Amino acid sequence: MPPDEPRNVDPSPAATAETVTAEQFRQTMALLPAAVNIVTSDGPGGRAGLTASAVCSVTDAPPTLLVCVNALRSTGDAFLANKALCVNTIGPEHEDLARLFGGRTPPEERFAAGDWRTGRSGAPVLTGALASFDCQVDEVKTVGTHHVLFCRVLEVAALPGGQASVYFARRFHALTP
Amino acid sequence: MPPDEPRNVDPSPAATAETVTAEQFRQTMALLPAAVNIVTSDGPGGRAGLTASAVCSVTDAPPTLLVCVNALRSTGDAFLANKALCVNTIGPEHEDLARLFGGRTPPEERFAAGDWRTGRSGAPVLTGALASFDCQVDEVKTVGTHHVLFCRVLEVAALPGGQASVYFARRFHALTP
Repeated sequence: MPPDEPRNVDPSPAATAETVTAEQFRQTMALLPAAVNIVTSDGPGGRAGLTASAVCSVTDAPPTLLVCVNALRSTGDAFLANKALCVNTIGPEHEDLARLFGGRTPPEERFAAGDWRTGRSGAPVLTGALASFDCQVDEVKTVGTHHVLFCRVLEVAALPGGQASVYFARRFHALTP
Repeated sequence: MPPDEPRNVDPSPAATAETVTAEQFRQTMALLPAAVNIVTSDGPGGRAGLTASAVCSVTDAPPTLLVCVNALRSTGDAFLANKALCVNTIGPEHEDLARLFGGRTPPEERFAAGDWRTGRSGAPVLTGALASFDCQVDEVKTVGTHHVLFCRVLEVAALPGGQASVYFARRFHALTP
């Protein structure tokens, strides 16, 4: 039966003994297109960064976004220790850099491959990013394996008219505005 | 000075007296491409739905996503009362429906324009959606004007190979996998 056909299922939210598997969830989530963001930080916890798609706007009063990061990786600890991060939303010209920040390359090599300035929070801001949101980390909520970081936006930078990079169906796509 | 050029700013996160304005934040956030999702609910709080871009994956253990909704709108109240919602990630063929769910049309007219089945949570699942995540609402965190709903995924449906719709620079874009 195709997955979009009606199914005869228990409509009660209480019937949660069997939910979806992690693999089913990841496969379906791969169909949700997302921005490609290089999230960086610096401060007492050290210079660190990773590539994240799980970034979203929360409210504009005050300007706040959230970032979800794996709690089992040390980069998340650096974000928490520094209480500062910058979300750098990229276009196609920074896809190689995003791959580097999404892999196992040591932090110093990751940063050597890009051009950065220091943001108001102390985090590295990527020169030529489509959009950058320099933030202080206000609050953290841990859910299972991940930290959800609630971040107050201190400073923004943007290159309106630039192409965006979107991650969808496990590959990058370029979008022209 | 272009926004991506170095600036001489106070690097201390404490210097937050002047942050970005709501308008600067919204303009920059418009450059962050996002999936287009019709989020629906049904139950004691009534049938309700809206179009949201602020949806992201949290963890796969257990499968959890989050949705940010305006706390000042009644649809968010329905999601909370029902403790159930379905995130329907759409492709180009449902952009008109997404506009309807993003506007001021009454709920009954919104739903009349689509084809739905009832998900395990009780929420309407959009037939032919690119991906659907039927969820129970586990927890709510309110930040400023918005509720962040943490949702356990009960059931997924997907049409792999279908086109996605992406909202970027204030318009829809079709993406082919």
